[in-house]
Amino acid sequence: MHRLSSPVAHALIPVAALIGIAFALYQWYLVSKIKVSVDNQTHENGNGNVNGENGIHEMEEGVDGLDVRKKCAEIQEAVSIGANSFLFTEYKYLGYFMTAFAVVIFLFLGSVHNFSTHKKPCAYDESKLCHSPVANAVFSCIAFILGALTSVLSGYLGMKIATYANARTTLEAQKGVGPAFIVAYRSGAVMGFLLASLALLVLYIAINVFKLYFHDDWEGLYDSITGYGLGGSSVALFGRVGGGIYTKAADVGADLVGKVERNIPEDDPRNPAVIADNVGDNVGDIAGMGSDLFGSYAESSCAALFVASISSFGINHEFPAMMYPLLISSMGIIVCLITTLFVTDFQKLTTIKDIGPALKNQILFSTVLMTGGVALVTFVTLPVHFTLFDFGREKHVKNWHLFFCVCSGLWAGLVIGYTTEYYTSNAFQPVKDVANSCKTGAATNVIFGLALGYKSVIIPIFAIAVAIYVGFALAAMYGIALAALGMLSTIATGLSIDAYGPISDNAGGIAEMAGMPHNVRETTDALDAAGNTTAAIGKGFAIGSAALVSLALFGAYVSRVGLDTVNVLNKKVIIGLLVGAMLPYWFSALTMKSVGSAALKMVEEVRRQFNEIPGLMEGTAKPDYATCVKISTDASIKKMIAPGALVMVTPLITGTFFGTETLAGLLAGALVSSVQVAISASNSGGAWDNAKKYIEAGASEHARLLGPKGSEAHKAAVIGDTIGDPLKDTSGPSLNILIKLMAVESLVFAPFFKAHGGLFFK
Amino acid sequence: MHRLSSPVAHALIPVAALIGIAFALYQWYLVSKIKVSVDNQTHENGNGNVNGENGIHEMEEGVDGLDVRKKCAEIQEAVSIGANSFLFTEYKYLGYFMTAFAVVIFLFLGSVHNFSTHKKPCAYDESKLCHSPVANAVFSCIAFILGALTSVLSGYLGMKIATYANARTTLEAQKGVGPAFIVAYRSGAVMGFLLASLALLVLYIAINVFKLYFHDDWEGLYDSITGYGLGGSSVALFGRVGGGIYTKAADVGADLVGKVERNIPEDDPRNPAVIADNVGDNVGDIAGMGSDLFGSYAESSCAALFVASISSFGINHEFPAMMYPLLISSMGIIVCLITTLFVTDFQKLTTIKDIGPALKNQILFSTVLMTGGVALVTFVTLPVHFTLFDFGREKHVKNWHLFFCVCSGLWAGLVIGYTTEYYTSNAFQPVKDVANSCKTGAATNVIFGLALGYKSVIIPIFAIAVAIYVGFALAAMYGIALAALGMLSTIATGLSIDAYGPISDNAGGIAEMAGMPHNVRETTDALDAAGNTTAAIGKGFAIGSAALVSLALFGAYVSRVGLDTVNVLNKKVIIGLLVGAMLPYWFSALTMKSVGSAALKMVEEVRRQFNEIPGLMEGTAKPDYATCVKISTDASIKKMIAPGALVMVTPLITGTFFGTETLAGLLAGALVSSVQVAISASNSGGAWDNAKKYIEAGASEHARLLGPKGSEAHKAAVIGDTIGDPLKDTSGPSLNILIKLMAVESLVFAPFFKAHGGLFFK
Repeated sequence: MHRLSSPVAHALIPVAALIGIAFALYQWYLVSKIKVSVDNQTHENGNGNVNGENGIHEMEEGVDGLDVRKKCAEIQEAVSIGANSFLFTEYKYLGYFMTAFAVVIFLFLGSVHNFSTHKKPCAYDESKLCHSPVANAVFSCIAFILGALTSVLSGYLGMKIATYANARTTLEAQKGVGPAFIVAYRSGAVMGFLLASLALLVLYIAINVFKLYFHDDWEGLYDSITGYGLGGSSVALFGRVGGGIYTKAADVGADLVGKVERNIPEDDPRNPAVIADNVGDNVGDIAGMGSDLFGSYAESSCAALFVASISSFGINHEFPAMMYPLLISSMGIIVCLITTLFVTDFQKLTTIKDIGPALKNQILFSTVLMTGGVALVTFVTLPVHFTLFDFGREKHVKNWHLFFCVCSGLWAGLVIGYTTEYYTSNAFQPVKDVANSCKTGAATNVIFGLALGYKSVIIPIFAIAVAIYVGFALAAMYGIALAALGMLSTIATGLSIDAYGPISDNAGGIAEMAGMPHNVRETTDALDAAGNTTAAIGKGFAIGSAALVSLALFGAYVSRVGLDTVNVLNKKVIIGLLVGAMLPYWFSALTMKSVGSAALKMVEEVRRQFNEIPGLMEGTAKPDYATCVKISTDASIKKMIAPGALVMVTPLITGTFFGTETLAGLLAGALVSSVQVAISASNSGGAWDNAKKYIEAGASEHARLLGPKGSEAHKAAVIGDTIGDPLKDTSGPSLNILIKLMAVESLVFAPFFKAHGGLFFK
Repeated sequence: MHRLSSPVAHALIPVAALIGIAFALYQWYLVSKIKVSVDNQTHENGNGNVNGENGIHEMEEGVDGLDVRKKCAEIQEAVSIGANSFLFTEYKYLGYFMTAFAVVIFLFLGSVHNFSTHKKPCAYDESKLCHSPVANAVFSCIAFILGALTSVLSGYLGMKIATYANARTTLEAQKGVGPAFIVAYRSGAVMGFLLASLALLVLYIAINVFKLYFHDDWEGLYDSITGYGLGGSSVALFGRVGGGIYTKAADVGADLVGKVERNIPEDDPRNPAVIADNVGDNVGDIAGMGSDLFGSYAESSCAALFVASISSFGINHEFPAMMYPLLISSMGIIVCLITTLFVTDFQKLTTIKDIGPALKNQILFSTVLMTGGVALVTFVTLPVHFTLFDFGREKHVKNWHLFFCVCSGLWAGLVIGYTTEYYTSNAFQPVKDVANSCKTGAATNVIFGLALGYKSVIIPIFAIAVAIYVGFALAAMYGIALAALGMLSTIATGLSIDAYGPISDNAGGIAEMAGMPHNVRETTDALDAAGNTTAAIGKGFAIGSAALVSLALFGAYVSRVGLDTVNVLNKKVIIGLLVGAMLPYWFSALTMKSVGSAALKMVEEVRRQFNEIPGLMEGTAKPDYATCVKISTDASIKKMIAPGALVMVTPLITGTFFGTETLAGLLAGALVSSVQVAISASNSGGAWDNAKKYIEAGASEHARLLGPKGSEAHKAAVIGDTIGDPLKDTSGPSLNILIKLMAVESLVFAPFFKAHGGLFFK
């Protein structure tokens, strides 16, 4: 087979990215054809038949079509305004933070050779001259800001389409499961494809623009490009932690007063926190998740490029081989596009039972197709033999080795996804057992749910361990970075499925608030139950890829600071390892406490409104949604300072005062410990949520025995669900950020730590 | 200062041990002077005045003194029979297990040189000849069985005195806080001193007997002695895991039906599971805790001796210096004896408020006194300069270095103890916050409690990290072993305080069951509340010392298999690290699930009895206690197989199939991850328990606002308490065993793994 020429490789990446963007915009266009506004055109366009088709239901339950449409539009408007208001507040603080941190980057990196602008010998080949640390500092800052802006843009657009789509999903749910599912899925795909394509395109452009300055100094070039990953993950800190606190403060607060004290259903429009809750789904689960995966993607690409740049590809300046990681991602976009067509165009989904398998097949199809895609890219891009950098030694590698590295990550992702489904879907025994334990009350429910979360860690860890072993054995740290990229290569599909969840959840909320017929709510509930599981799967992917990415970054960091070994028997390493393993606990304590106290504030406000606004309970007066939105916004910004500072400051302090070895230990300890905490938290939470849904749906003999809503068992299940909320949506997923951000920050600051670090142990 | 001569060193160790045993027996004698039997002598001995003194109360509440005494005797008898029955069942299976495992040890170790009985070159000095692996195998088996028997004996005696003392404590509680406290404390001291002294004495005798065979082959001698630690920890597996499941199955089962469904108070004699619950306190918290700490003590001594034997002490056969670890323990017994006198004889405790400080001062006094003791032992035992083995290199050490190693562990223990108190005592803000969160229900209570547990990890981890750094920096792995011994040097006091807790708890139970006046129950409740905190402190010590011990054993293992480094960047190590960090989750999932399902069985039995035994609820019929005891016993034995197998089999499989490096990674990963899980589980549980007690006691304005018993907040607190039960008493403390047992097992099997391990990676 002929190998790819440099111009072709150059062309393929932006073309794939542009195809992805075009596809996303086309999906958006299709979604936009459903009208929610109530102006004259309703009867003119093709969707005007909603009235006709569902006239019977509407007549039966006395709801007029136009009224519903108007109400949906109103609610969507409120949610959209709330989400915008939160995101802009968040972006304001993010702006301050980014500016300050860019200055820190410049000062730390610039100071490596006392701000000298002269060229210096390269770190890995001292016979050559590389650009000065100041150049490195400046370009790292630019890459950092680029990464941040791209992440913000992707998250923002994702949130836009989500708030744009949820009322549309509700309206389509009147027609049945199929149409509603398609709208929700298409909207998720907008997010998925936009993010994957933008991330690739901007990175590609940045590399090419930077090259105009760096020319042949690829070491300096890819050293600086690492800032892109740091920027992406810094935004993810705000998205995951701030967004996570927001969404669960609102959710827990709404539930505690609404469901427990006032005995009104979920998403009841009388509940003042209900809009904040819906906003939370969009900013936490959509924008937060998006920025998290964007960060993983950017970081694994950067780590792979960095390692490659000091290997034979980089030294011999073989462009197509150097671009192998980006070509894999390009192929991923095309594969995901084809996969999406299966569910949106090739098959038609008609019954509730089909939803789960349809979503699961998306993951399976994309993985299978991608395996072929990886093979193709590998054999047309790479030379048959080459050498890679392996901690100071040279490692001889064959092209098919890299194929296995990418595939080990790709398939590990599938295993994690399927395991997560098994432990969090109420179609399987584990969740049924948890639901059953509600018979003896909330305490046994919590004990069984925690045990389930712990148990669900086992298989994913083995899957990750195998991916690490394969990656490491075949291609050292480059192999790990490729395994991470492999897991993320189907990110467009992964994110589509994931974003589908909160969109369906919100659609249900809107149906309830707009007072739509019972059958509509049933449809959206079914979409949502499948969404809970896919959300858990998405979290599994996110943590799995975060683990691989962090390990790759860790390897790059160790190379960069020039350590030969990270020896557990070294006193500096072992204390780093121990303290690092403690960090996820510290971090989780902060985030959970944040949710708890923000929720208590929300509870007070909701109680106050119920007590002070006459007619609220009776539905004759409107609650003050805006105040609740404001409480969540303020609390989330304020409460993310402590956990955020912990993440950002720990590597700086450790590296500066305790040196590179302790920092290496700390990163390794945090990595191996966080993965466990994150997976167990996310799966316990998912299981509690679906155990509750299992009892509510009453779809089996056993479930009906436990139910119905309001039974003692159901009350116990609600308690478990509430406990799971911060675990699965705040503290658990935030840990991805903890390990990735600490690792990438350590890598970016590595030249400084190498030059000046370890003050206390000197 | 003159250094100790060999005969003096020889004499000091057994003398100290015998003094400790004598002191324990004297305490037992003092406790035995309180009579619970109702034969004629009641009126003859000095304690007959109970009737007179408390006549008013008894008249008021219509309870006759003799009746009470008789009832107490009956209940004590029932508890004692139940505990005996469980322990003997446990010992039966333990016997099978020990026999089988001794055979495994013999086969694995004997096979190192194909069961050749010829002498072979020593592992650390190939110019000399050492005894054959078969001799090593035989003596390892003997040491293993000795360790097991000593642990069983200590645990059994501890349980005996505890069941002997609890009714006596109840009776003394009629006289007031002071006398009741003294009885409970003296009984705890019997356990503490017997265990510390027996452990030391048997080890000392074993060394001297083994020496008759090994003569100058100290390497072989101390290699074999390591079996003593393995034996001790194997018993601890049964004690902690089996006992832990027993106690919480009974406790949770009793609470779920009694408190939640039937609305009868805790420890009500109508509850059929109440005797099983009380038995559980004795077998889980007393015998289990005892065997756990015995294991830590035996292992850290063995690890220190092993490392010393291949250092200059061993090579030059300097006996007093070699015995330094045992002399530290000897000094510990004397120091604890003096410390005990402070609380039993020098001061008199009169009010409830004094209990907490009195117990806390015990820890403080013993630590301060011991610091002086360590200095004395260090300077009279050790040469000024010497060399230690440091992974193939020689390390030059001064005697005062070792003083700091021991003290770093000793004082780290104090820091852990005080931190634990802060996070679990309801005198401080954290528990009050948890109690306050009950206002909004069980969900927020659980969220706040989990966050508290996570947060409580921070300071202990830093304390352990400092101890490790100091130990490592000054004396390599020997320093770590000494730090562990330092933390355990005050074990007699630590165990006294710890055993005091369940004794008081049981005393309260007996007061309730015997229908004693309200003020008696108040006194025992106050003793018990302090006991909850000291139990948490004890668990903190146990996990802290387990961490240090495991690290020392890990170091010894790495030396023994001849690894120079354990490099995180090695693919075999990193996957071991990751999977190792997962093990505490797997293990906790198994233990928690065991408690959950055993508790459900108990619930069914208790419900059955309430439904089928007429007059049970009215108190006219007696429940069938024995069946509940049997359910707990059977469940605990059956349910400990899976977690037990996980601990025992994992190192064997990993070492045999994946080799010594993966096993090293696995041990390190399990160590750094388990410490966090164990501390957070134990402190969350302790905090929930005391938050509930805080609301029940209603001792402050805030507490009364939340209470009284039966209020919504109290119900939420009870749910938290029930969730905490398996966390703090089963899964959390069992993790100590996980890390210690895996480490010591790896050390014992090290020669085999070195010779034949790593089949898959060859």
